[in-house]
Amino acid sequence: MLKGFTLPKSPFGQAALTPPPPWHYSGDAMGVEFWADPGAVAATLPPGLSPDSKSNGRAVMMFLEWQFTAQDDEYLDPARYQYREAFVLLDAMYRDMPVRWCPYVFVDNDAALARGWTQGFPRKMGSIFQTRTYAAASPAAAPLMPGARFGASLSAHGQRLAEARITLRKPAEDRLSLFGRPTVLLRYFPRLAAGYRDRPAVNELTMLITDNPTVAEAWIGDGELNLPEARGEELHVLAPVAIESGFRCSLSYSVTDLRILEDHSA
Amino acid sequence: MLKGFTLPKSPFGQAALTPPPPWHYSGDAMGVEFWADPGAVAATLPPGLSPDSKSNGRAVMMFLEWQFTAQDDEYLDPARYQYREAFVLLDAMYRDMPVRWCPYVFVDNDAALARGWTQGFPRKMGSIFQTRTYAAASPAAAPLMPGARFGASLSAHGQRLAEARITLRKPAEDRLSLFGRPTVLLRYFPRLAAGYRDRPAVNELTMLITDNPTVAEAWIGDGELNLPEARGEELHVLAPVAIESGFRCSLSYSVTDLRILEDHSA
Amino acid sequence: MLKGFTLPKSPFGQAALTPPPPWHYSGDAMGVEFWADPGAVAATLPPGLSPDSKSNGRAVMMFLEWQFTAQDDEYLDPARYQYREAFVLLDAMYRDMPVRWCPYVFVDNDAALARGWTQGFPRKMGSIFQTRTYAAASPAAAPLMPGARFGASLSAHGQRLAEARITLRKPAEDRLSLFGRPTVLLRYFPRLAAGYRDRPAVNELTMLITDNPTVAEAWIGDGELNLPEARGEELHVLAPVAIESGFRCSLSYSVTDLRILEDHSA
Amino acid sequence: MLKGFTLPKSPFGQAALTPPPPWHYSGDAMGVEFWADPGAVAATLPPGLSPDSKSNGRAVMMFLEWQFTAQDDEYLDPARYQYREAFVLLDAMYRDMPVRWCPYVFVDNDAALARGWTQGFPRKMGSIFQTRTYAAASPAAAPLMPGARFGASLSAHGQRLAEARITLRKPAEDRLSLFGRPTVLLRYFPRLAAGYRDRPAVNELTMLITDNPTVAEAWIGDGELNLPEARGEELHVLAPVAIESGFRCSLSYSVTDLRILEDHSA
Repeated sequence: MLKGFTLPKSPFGQAALTPPPPWHYSGDAMGVEFWADPGAVAATLPPGLSPDSKSNGRAVMMFLEWQFTAQDDEYLDPARYQYREAFVLLDAMYRDMPVRWCPYVFVDNDAALARGWTQGFPRKMGSIFQTRTYAAASPAAAPLMPGARFGASLSAHGQRLAEARITLRKPAEDRLSLFGRPTVLLRYFPRLAAGYRDRPAVNELTMLITDNPTVAEAWIGDGELNLPEARGEELHVLAPVAIESGFRCSLSYSVTDLRILEDHSA
Repeated sequence: MLKGFTLPKSPFGQAALTPPPPWHYSGDAMGVEFWADPGAVAATLPPGLSPDSKSNGRAVMMFLEWQFTAQDDEYLDPARYQYREAFVLLDAMYRDMPVRWCPYVFVDNDAALARGWTQGFPRKMGSIFQTRTYAAASPAAAPLMPGARFGASLSAHGQRLAEARITLRKPAEDRLSLFGRPTVLLRYFPRLAAGYRDRPAVNELTMLITDNPTVAEAWIGDGELNLPEARGEELHVLAPVAIESGFRCSLSYSVTDLRILEDHSA
Repeated sequence: MLKGFTLPKSPFGQAALTPPPPWHYSGDAMGVEFWADPGAVAATLPPGLSPDSKSNGRAVMMFLEWQFTAQDDEYLDPARYQYREAFVLLDAMYRDMPVRWCPYVFVDNDAALARGWTQGFPRKMGSIFQTRTYAAASPAAAPLMPGARFGASLSAHGQRLAEARITLRKPAEDRLSLFGRPTVLLRYFPRLAAGYRDRPAVNELTMLITDNPTVAEAWIGDGELNLPEARGEELHVLAPVAIESGFRCSLSYSVTDLRILEDHSA
Repeated sequence: MLKGFTLPKSPFGQAALTPPPPWHYSGDAMGVEFWADPGAVAATLPPGLSPDSKSNGRAVMMFLEWQFTAQDDEYLDPARYQYREAFVLLDAMYRDMPVRWCPYVFVDNDAALARGWTQGFPRKMGSIFQTRTYAAASPAAAPLMPGARFGASLSAHGQRLAEARITLRKPAEDRLSLFGRPTVLLRYFPRLAAGYRDRPAVNELTMLITDNPTVAEAWIGDGELNLPEARGEELHVLAPVAIESGFRCSLSYSVTDLRILEDHSA
């Protein structure tokens, strides 16, 4: 009896790309809230989602550094389980519910890629960096204080896909607005057999379920975002028309479940 | 209407991890044919496959460097589409048909990882190297001739998983035996929703279909193989009991289809 | 007039591997204090250093994550300037002064490699990871508290060179002992011209000068350390005979100068 | 007595970044010959070199894949010793001798970086790819024939620095012109000690000495080259004003010596 939540299934269940849930995450995030072209946003929406006419192209680009653990002290093996991530979320409507849709997301770790696919995050591999804040005072420490600046970047296959900078102004008074809408994803797995390629084996609109979401040390301020054109990518089509703000926070959550909104599997 | 063979689906179909088939591959391979513990081999087999009692643990470990192209000159963008691979194939039986089963495989490229998953290759990310043969004479050139030696290695997350060396003896007289059996894979995609985790969305025993397989410049000789123990992996359980031979060749094939042997999807 | 502190010298001075000092560093470190075989320690010492008979093989293995900046906001370009590091320091004597000697050190960034060479750090490229502590509570957060555990690893060219784990017991009462001795390095640059290879162009025993060294959030506890054997490396010769302790801290310092203890350049 | 040609010096001489010469190289190269702005070329020249008024900005951008060996079968450890390289060479004059000057060069391997520094190649770390030619026929094989196309790219720290494409027209009739001039380099190692920073420890104009240079399977044809602007680099200042040709070849040589043209060390 082979074991493992994902491939590779193996006799002892140790070879699988990711251990089974519950999955626990804690990390640091910075991001920029902006407006993209509403038509470009609408063009990314899968069946089941519709444009949010009230938000008119509102989006957020986020850069994250994550520590992961499941049930076996995975956080003590950071070479295998730490990872970095960058994604864009776009305002949309699921029926009459305001949601955030994730069209593009990059990570630098295969365990994270595999977990993401099972949820509907369309993860590809990328190289992600963000300025960190450190406890020992120095011109290099980037302490959390008014005027502090942070930079971030995303690259894939040697092309720069995103660059952001933020300047902190003040602690955020309450939970950041970007966590105020649920995240909707497309869980999708194609068929390769000839004659069946238009009938994906898995084609589900899903909603991310996060247990115990926690935000700490949240700051808001100003932001800059550049999404340069790159071959083999379409993120740049969402380049900012206007910037709303920048932010930085620590956050954590756990995953034990997934909500299937609609099943279009063939 | 979103386009793309895999995630991410996008307005122009340029963001997907891999272009749709036909997929064309050409590259160089080296490998070691060996016998693993028959019980260890049997323990890796999925439902539908049974041990090949005649071959008694026979296996091959292969290291490959691939150039890929689909329909849009992808071979001119090697930063995105070249990749390296290492896998082990194990003799097994599908009903009364001798086959080769692939329990573990590593690549260094996300497009290759995505294509593999759609076929049933349980690809994870790794770092793979092999000695190359170059046309300009030098102590560094490794020309194809009797006595020539080649080395290869596989690592993942900073752990060395396999090391091989071969010594060429003579050109192979005909198509290498390792290509004499079809490759069987497990196409698998889990469900994350609570209560459904024992009901995978995709769970198919598949058989690789290769169009126009070509072997060139094939040599056989002696081999050495070391599969050191590593956390988070089970490849080492298949460590050689005895070595049969080493080989090196160039090979190419195309993929346009996949045969589904058995569908155990829930 | 070409500009730049190091190669490549260029018209605008923007291409050099590293900007000129002052160099500012802030980051997190974890490490294990241990005893290696005193003979193995003595065998690593360059001319000018002698064994510290009182400390009898005492050593520390450290893992660090660094944010770097010079005068041009380099900390806002973390893709180029953040880096990770692992090194071993060995107790030794410079004349009658107790010092720490650094025989082996790895980083994952070329700017850091270049800076290190100019000081005498014999940096090679490696892959370094350590468990981080995050502000948002979670099983993945690793908060600084008694019993908290952290893991770290070092690999190079796909071989694992070091693995460490620590368990925090209590905050350190004062500055960690490991910062109580100055660090001595070998600044060395060979000659390649035939007939001159035994006459290095630069061969200086140096002492690290750190401005404004700051230690924050220092904890001590228990440690484990494994230095597996690896080809092309000699770190494993210093494998622990006994472990003294583990520790974790944040630290920062700046570099504007270097002390030359002895000049053996030919 | 510590051993090793470079740092780290060690008891057994196994830890040094590179083994001592002779160094043997064999590999594949593709490149584009072009004209840059003559003023931009002149601005990169170190003391001792002057513009070549006859060639008026002529340059070549090359992409290479190298297999390396010294005396200990290093070519059997490709994870440590294979590497890729990209550099630009510019026509210049050393006194009355036409030479090629190398202002910028990138590799993906630390042993290669260390060897380069000892010669005067100002190597930084980058990510380099080129289309390969494989023996097994396929749309992915890129055989050497009229009309065959090859692509190459260079990135560093996630920024794309160069992209090239060539189309083969015919075999080159004799040794490629680009190997008709000796390569001149700047061997440079700074001082960090305060007050001595304008007095580099090593500052030598050198000339590459290559033993047994061999060119095989050389083809010439058309070329395209793009050098996009990138922060922290100055390669783009040399962007093509006009393209002369493209080429591809295999080549090999050995290194056992270095010629020092002028010594400006302080």
